[in-house]
Order: sequence, then structure tokens, then C-alpha cells
Amino acid sequence: MSNRQVLTQYVYQIAATLYAGGVRDVVVSPGSRSTPLAYAFASANDLILHRQVDERAAAFYALGLAKASGKPVVLLCTSGTAAANYFPAIIEAKYACVPLIVLTADRPHELREVGAPQAIDQVQLYGQHVKWSVDFPIPDEAPQTLPFITQHTARAVLTAMSAPYGPVHMNVPFREPLTIDLQEVLPAVNVQTFAATLTPPVEAQQALCDIVAKTARGFIVVGEQALQTNNAHIWAFIRQMKWPVLVESLSNMRGNIPLDCRDYVIATYDAILKSPEFKAVVRPETVIRFGAQPVSKFVQLFIEEAQPEHYIVIDENVKFRDSIAMATCVIQAQIGEWLTKLPITTAIESAYVEEWRDVNELAMEYIEHYIDGAVDEGAAMSHLLAGVPEETDLFVSSSMPIRDIDTFFLPTTRDVRVFANRGANGIDGVVSTAIGFSQKNERNTVLVIGDLAFLHDISGLLATRYQACNLDIVVMNNDGGGIFSYLPQAKVPQHYEELFGTPTALTFEHIAAMYSFEHIAVHNVQELYGIMQTPRTKIRLIEVFTNRDDNTFAHRALWQQIMMGIKTWQS
Amino acid sequence: MSNRQVLTQYVYQIAATLYAGGVRDVVVSPGSRSTPLAYAFASANDLILHRQVDERAAAFYALGLAKASGKPVVLLCTSGTAAANYFPAIIEAKYACVPLIVLTADRPHELREVGAPQAIDQVQLYGQHVKWSVDFPIPDEAPQTLPFITQHTARAVLTAMSAPYGPVHMNVPFREPLTIDLQEVLPAVNVQTFAATLTPPVEAQQALCDIVAKTARGFIVVGEQALQTNNAHIWAFIRQMKWPVLVESLSNMRGNIPLDCRDYVIATYDAILKSPEFKAVVRPETVIRFGAQPVSKFVQLFIEEAQPEHYIVIDENVKFRDSIAMATCVIQAQIGEWLTKLPITTAIESAYVEEWRDVNELAMEYIEHYIDGAVDEGAAMSHLLAGVPEETDLFVSSSMPIRDIDTFFLPTTRDVRVFANRGANGIDGVVSTAIGFSQKNERNTVLVIGDLAFLHDISGLLATRYQACNLDIVVMNNDGGGIFSYLPQAKVPQHYEELFGTPTALTFEHIAAMYSFEHIAVHNVQELYGIMQTPRTKIRLIEVFTNRDDNTFAHRALWQQIMMGIKTWQS
Repeated sequence: MSNRQVLTQYVYQIAATLYAGGVRDVVVSPGSRSTPLAYAFASANDLILHRQVDERAAAFYALGLAKASGKPVVLLCTSGTAAANYFPAIIEAKYACVPLIVLTADRPHELREVGAPQAIDQVQLYGQHVKWSVDFPIPDEAPQTLPFITQHTARAVLTAMSAPYGPVHMNVPFREPLTIDLQEVLPAVNVQTFAATLTPPVEAQQALCDIVAKTARGFIVVGEQALQTNNAHIWAFIRQMKWPVLVESLSNMRGNIPLDCRDYVIATYDAILKSPEFKAVVRPETVIRFGAQPVSKFVQLFIEEAQPEHYIVIDENVKFRDSIAMATCVIQAQIGEWLTKLPITTAIESAYVEEWRDVNELAMEYIEHYIDGAVDEGAAMSHLLAGVPEETDLFVSSSMPIRDIDTFFLPTTRDVRVFANRGANGIDGVVSTAIGFSQKNERNTVLVIGDLAFLHDISGLLATRYQACNLDIVVMNNDGGGIFSYLPQAKVPQHYEELFGTPTALTFEHIAAMYSFEHIAVHNVQELYGIMQTPRTKIRLIEVFTNRDDNTFAHRALWQQIMMGIKTWQS
Repeated sequence: MSNRQVLTQYVYQIAATLYAGGVRDVVVSPGSRSTPLAYAFASANDLILHRQVDERAAAFYALGLAKASGKPVVLLCTSGTAAANYFPAIIEAKYACVPLIVLTADRPHELREVGAPQAIDQVQLYGQHVKWSVDFPIPDEAPQTLPFITQHTARAVLTAMSAPYGPVHMNVPFREPLTIDLQEVLPAVNVQTFAATLTPPVEAQQALCDIVAKTARGFIVVGEQALQTNNAHIWAFIRQMKWPVLVESLSNMRGNIPLDCRDYVIATYDAILKSPEFKAVVRPETVIRFGAQPVSKFVQLFIEEAQPEHYIVIDENVKFRDSIAMATCVIQAQIGEWLTKLPITTAIESAYVEEWRDVNELAMEYIEHYIDGAVDEGAAMSHLLAGVPEETDLFVSSSMPIRDIDTFFLPTTRDVRVFANRGANGIDGVVSTAIGFSQKNERNTVLVIGDLAFLHDISGLLATRYQACNLDIVVMNNDGGGIFSYLPQAKVPQHYEELFGTPTALTFEHIAAMYSFEHIAVHNVQELYGIMQTPRTKIRLIEVFTNRDDNTFAHRALWQQIMMGIKTWQS
């Protein structure tokens, strides 16, 4: 066989094995060393090729694709620092449990660590931040080679797709020449893989039921859940339990709520759990949590202070996602039908449920009325939420937007979902993740982001030049880092704007013009309702001008009102 | 002592030890966990604080500062993926031997790996890509703590500044509360550090002289050299040797050439070493190389084909930067006075020197005339070089710009220098590195970059909102990846534009408007001369519109002319 044939067979075998494992989407950044694999991905009809020049943005874009599709997504880049640019998104994928299959092309062994251009040490490049990493052999004719790469590529996909999902890394060296024979059809691959479903043993189910049967005062917390989780199982569990359930916005149990579950749903916890009076009233014996820790610090603080007898964490992750170190029982499990078949005898006190319900309704009323005259980002979020059409997904940046969503997104029967990068909570890569997400999302996608996070990932917009994209980008432009206004640092005037506020005095009509987006400047947050109701004809960059001081003041005033309301309720 | 006093003492001790080690510049990205160190850096009068929101850009900006100053530069970011964004620049710093001191704030141990927000595993985050990494203890009152952090901070600086320079990593955990007492003066630190000068042993010097004394046909290659290298020592060596010396643009021995050395300087090697006829004529017995491998592939190929009896690499790096694996003698050494004191007896044949000189002059003539009617990027580079004022430093992107500089920057007595990121040769972070470089450079700075590299690091421009900046940004906009036109991939029409050309159809007048830069559109490359001669009043974004096909065609035509010229010369 010619070298060219050997190389062709090698890369098509990798592509075919990825396809057999469920990969449909590949995100490629231009480069030379990656040419053989890029050709295989681009020419095979069964794979969808996405492109992005900036590898950091490419990796976040791939993360978005995987979050929307629930399928493994492949990344491909050339050798050198290109591969290092993937690192932030890989870490996010590891902590957020998203299946990324990272292929880094490498120089052959004779060009490693000898000063050759674009050659860095790529073996185990991502350290502990991938689930698995493998350094592939140079393509050759040895009979062992094709079986090896088939097995290891299949293993890469299976590893990424076994619960909890996560990123894997394949480092693939190529010698020149790099051109191959182009084929439109992937070869057949004779390897099937099946990842296990994680079900708790009978003993765990019994232990859970025993605690529930003894609990008069308990609540459930639902944080962000694993990709592709079916909420119906949790709703069925709640129907049996009849416990209050604190649903974080990222649980996607705030929209589309079954009517018979509405009475149990608590969404204002971040506000009401600021009240010492209320916390004293609803002190729990037992807390059950599904999924990740909630965004709200006040839920965490409450559990820490309350010291419940039982704090049961049900999570496919075994890594004790419990930063208050209070868990008394960790059950490794995925959300599944087992939750609906438990022999539950609930012993919850109806008075306890009513206390939660009353105060939740009280807080909801303040939040609903708050919108009327307010000009801050909370009000903006409310108008936006009211205006978005059915079947909308919000992709929400870390920092203030996710916190505002958590406060202002009230339970609804409308079909609205919320997504964010909450693995490591960075403000990096948010634009790219949202654009990638929108590509695999048949619903309406709206990105909500602050000005600094937008600027951090401004190179992510480049993806819109390579793919047809359809989304709204809502930038809350308060000229700097709004979240710091809520921290003790804000009380130290020296160096505050320099280190934390970091205003740029930038506005974004020019960047919209550069990318041929429609730019809408919003100076009155009430306009957001109408704007969200208006169908778009192209990408819209909706720039909402707000003021950091207004935001802090308005949020604090709202919390104060709710605190006072709780005092009145109690007396 | 209060916790606040303990924390204050801890961070000021770190800042003071960094200062004692020679640090003057600190690049901070906004975040909360890093607050104590950020306060210490911002309030201490002796340190210069630089800011950039995007940590990837911040790290490249710091790299630029260090390249211009030759001093260690500190980076500071908050916990989480922020730290991962430093990775590309850290790898570049490792391979380019640039002293960066990376401080990542971390959560305290009880918040690590327990699902806490913005907490990732940061211990040894950068793997083998830093020279040293240390995980600091939580600030406390134990008598061991301050001596420990003093010693380890001093060690970090000494490690970064021992030859070869490189990046080091300090991971520093903090518990809340994070505010400290602000002080303007750094405390005294009683620790001095001295890094060694690397001098070759007498045996090595003798071995070198013995080979030189026996060599009738030899040449010297000077690649990119360590930061702060004094070229006077190399010129003194060349005066004694009288050998032809192939000076790469990055050696900074093309500008400011001593008159009595001009006859030995060869700058057209990339063109003339494409000629088999010429290569046969100048086959060497010995090659001596200083510094990194040259950019030019044709120099490497020539040495590989020529199989010289002696290939002596003089490099402070012991890692065999020799991707053709031809070195017969590796001498670990810095450029220094020892080079001027060698008992050299040169045995070089004057005919050999003249062959190089003749053909070099022939090629120079073609390159000088080439400028007349040409419209491509090579001609643009020539007009630019002719136009820049004395005491100009060009910061040149990887990919085509550095290659064009290497071809079109002809030896001159004018004081023009060239810098680039050639550790890993990435196109990432170039805008940021150039902006950082310009901050510490008292000379005129001009960035030359392609459109894709510009877009890759477009977030780097944000630094201009936080620091007063003064440079020209020359973007060669050929709408895509020009370098691939020279590769075999360009002959495969399928998927070429999709995978390699990757045009965006973007122009940059809008981004200039967003950042209040002056935008100059150049459609005729001859205009560049006048533009470079005109003093600027603010940052200029000079967008040169060129055509990828024109560039390839023009380059090939020039090489063809030179090949023909050599044939005529030979006959």
C-alpha cells in the first residue's frame, strides 16, 4: 500500500468509528498538520462540519453543540498552541459533564521537543481535566495499527458518553505528505459500544424511603441536571413526595410545570432564604438534592445553618458536589424510572408545605410588581422573559445574568428553558457556547450576557461567518463588572473601578455593523417585551443600557421589601 | 493578629519579594478571589498595574511586556477557567524562553473539588509547560508561613530568570473575607537572588576553535536569540571568523549592521537555498548556529542535505533545538564576552565567502527591484520597511508575515528590529503580545499581522481601553489563510476554501470605529511608505487589501527569477 493509502485508511477509520459511536458534528479550525482528518471529516457525507478560526471559541462552540444535542461532539485542530486554546472549554466540559472528543493533530515523534515549528509537548496536554487521553501511533501498514485505532477511538467515545459525560483527548501524529484520497462514504466499522445506566441499588432506594417515611419537615432541591435528563421522572417523584421543591432555573423545572405540581414549586428561595425569620420557621429535618449544587448561595447557607439530620445527594457524580460538606447520604444514580417506582410513604406536614408556599407566593407578588417602574437588569430580565415566544431557550452568562434569571424567572406553564456554563462558572466562551447551542436547537435561542463577558468572547462571533446562525444576543451593557457591586470590595473606594468595575466605555453598534447583525439599542427596559415578541430576520444584537448602581440599589430594595413582607406575614 | 492583618502581611510579602526579584509590571484581570493580591499590586507605588479582562489576552500582553523589558512580568487572575485561559501564552513563554510569573488565586482546600463555583483543580494546572509550579498554603499566623512564602516567591522569580528563562506558576488560595489594609509601600525583604551566567567550559571553546581552524568552507546561522542578548559579541566573533553569516530577521542582526561586517551578512538564504545549483556550490564542511532554529525551511533542508562534518549548536537551551537531528556538537552557553576572546585561527577560503556574497547580492537586487510594480504582500512589506522611521520595532505575526519579513527585510544600517512569537509559532495572541510589547518599548512599534490572526485575538484590543497605547496595527487583509496557498493542499480543489482558505469577507473599519482608532484603508501597497512616514496621533489600524492568489503568484515569480539569475551567474 502507498503511504497515501495508509494515511487515507487510518483517518477514515477514525472518522467511521466516531460516527459509529454517535458523533454527527465536528468542529474544525484551519491548520496544516490536521489536514488528513479534516479532509476525512469534510468529505464524509454523514458528518456535519462546523468551522471556527479561534480554537478557544471553537471548543466552546462544540460545548454548545453537545449541550443542545446531548451527543458527543468532535473538535479538531492543528499542532501547537492551537491545542492549548481548547483548555478553558475542556475544563468547563469536565465539570459540566459534557461529552467532547478532542482530536489534536501532532508532529511525528522525530519533530517533538527538538525546536520544530508549531511543536509543543501535547501528550497528556490537558492533565487531569479530561476523562482519558491517548497518544496515537503514526499511521503505518502494521496489522496491529487499524485495530488499535478502532478500539481506542471507540473507547474515547464510550468514555466521553459514560456517565458522568466528559471530555476525552486523542493526540494524533502525522508525517508529511498530508494529502489523502477523498471519499464520501465512511467505511463500515464492526464495533458497538453501550454505556451503562446508573441505577441505585435496592438498599439505597430503601434507605431513601425510610428517611422519607420519618420526615415531617423536608424539602427537595433540584440543581442543574445531567444532559438529556427527563424531568418527568422528577415530577412523578414530587407527586408522591408532596414536599416543597426548590427548582433552580437551570433544572428546567420552572417552565412547562405540570399543573398538579405547581403547589410544590418554590422559585423565590434566593430572596426568602435571606430572611432569618423565615429560615427559623422552615428548618428542615431532611433535604434531598438532585444534580449540581444550586447557584444560590442562600440555599447553601440555609442548609449549612439548619444542619438537617439527613442531607441526601442524588447525583451521577461521585465527587461529592457538596461544598458545605453536609451530605449524610450520597447516592450515585442517574435520574430514571426507578424514581417513579419507589415505595414512598410521605410523612410531610401540610403546615410545613404551606409555610413555604405562602412565603413563596408573597415573594412572587413583590417580584411580579417590581417590574412596573423598575429600570434595572432585573426588570429587563422580567420583560425579556415575558416577551419571549413559546419554545424559547435562554442561554445565560455566568456572573449577574444567571443570578438575575434565578431571581426573576418565576414558575410558568410556558415552555421556556434556561442553560448556562455552570461547570466552572466562567464568563469565558459564553458567546461561542450560545452560538453552538443555537445550531443544534430547533427552538428559539436567546443569549443573555453582560458587556465584559461579551467582550471576553468577541472572537466567538466569527462562527457566524462560517455557519448560518439564528439567535438573539442580548447584552446587558452596564459598562463593567456588575457583580462586584454586591461584594464587600464595593465598600472600599480605593482601586474599586480600577480592579473590579473595569469600565471600557464601549458600545456595540460597530461590532454589529462589522458582522451585519441588526443592532437594537434599548434605553428603556420595557421595550424588551415588544422586541422579544418581534420575529427576527437575522441575528440581532440587542444592547440594553443599564447602570451598575441602579442594579444594586433596585435588587437591594426588592430584597428589603420581601424581608419586610415576611415580617408582616409572620406577625 | 486579626485575619485581616495576617492576609495583608501575606500578600504584601509576596508583592515585596516579587519586587526584590526585579518585577515591575503586573497584569491583572478582574475577579473576586484574587482580591488580596490585586489590592497589594494596585496600591504599592513601586509596581505598575496593567489590566485586561480576557485572561488569554492578558497573558500574551504580559509576554509582550517581558519581551520588551527582559524582566519578569507577573500575571494575576481569579480562580477557575480564568487560569486556563493563560495556557496558550504560557506554552509560548516556555518555548520562547520568556520569564512570566503566573499567580492564580484559588479557593481554599475545603472548596476544592466539591462542586463549589469557579473552583477547578489548579494544582499543577499547566503540567510540564511551566518550569516550576507551587501550591501555596492558606495565610495563617504560623511562624513558618511568611518565611515559606518569601522563599518560594523568590525561588519562582529566580527560576523564571535563570537561563533559559521561562514561565513559573504560583497557586495561591484565599479564604473569605478578601479585603485587606491598603499600603503604598512594600515591606523590606531580606533575600537576594542571582542567576548564573552560562559560559562554556574551556574544553568546549577549544573544540570550537579546533574545528574552525580546519574549516575552509563553513557558515554561521543566527536564529532568534535569548532575551537581552548583546549582538556586539556576535559581531566581534564574526569579525574574527570572516565566515558568511545567515542572519534571520529575528536575530536582529539585519538592522544596525556594523559597516565592517556587511560583507559577511547573508539575508536572502531562503530564496537562494532553493537553488540546487547554488547549494552544490556552497556545500559546507562546518555550520555553527547561535540561538533558535531559523524560520526558513530551506536553510534546514540545505544543512540536512549537505551533511556537514560539523554542525555546532551554541544555545543556552539543552533541549537540542535541532529538528533535523544533525548536530554533532551542542555547546550550552549564553552569548557573552567569551565569544570575543576565543583564540580563533580562521581557515575560511575567500572564494567560498565570495560565492555566498555574489549570489546574495544578485538575489538582493531582484528583491529590491521587485518592489517596483508589485501589488502583493511582499511588496507591501518592502514599502513598509522602507517607510518606518529609525528606531522602529516590528512585531510580526506568525504564518505569512514573519516569512515575508524574512524574505523582504534586507540588511541595513538603519536601526530596525523584528520580534515575533516563535516559541510555538502560533497565530494566537499576537495582537496582545504586540500591545504589551509597545508598552515597554521606547521605540516606535508596528504590528504586522494577517486578517485571521487579527480576528483570532480581537479581544486583545480591549487592553487599549485600560492603558494608553501607541502603535500602528498593519493588517494584511487577504480574506483568509494565505499561508496554505503555498502547501500541497492548495492543489486539491475540493474543500480548499472550506478547510484552509476560510474567508470571512470581513473588513475592519467598524472595529477601528468601536475602539476609536484611526482607520486607513490601503488599496495600493505603495501608499504604505508615506503612511509609515507620517507620525500618528493615536493608534492606527492600517488595513492593506491584498489577494491571496496575487501573493502566491508574485512570490513564486520572484523565486523563479532568482533561480534563473543563479543559473546565469553560474554559467
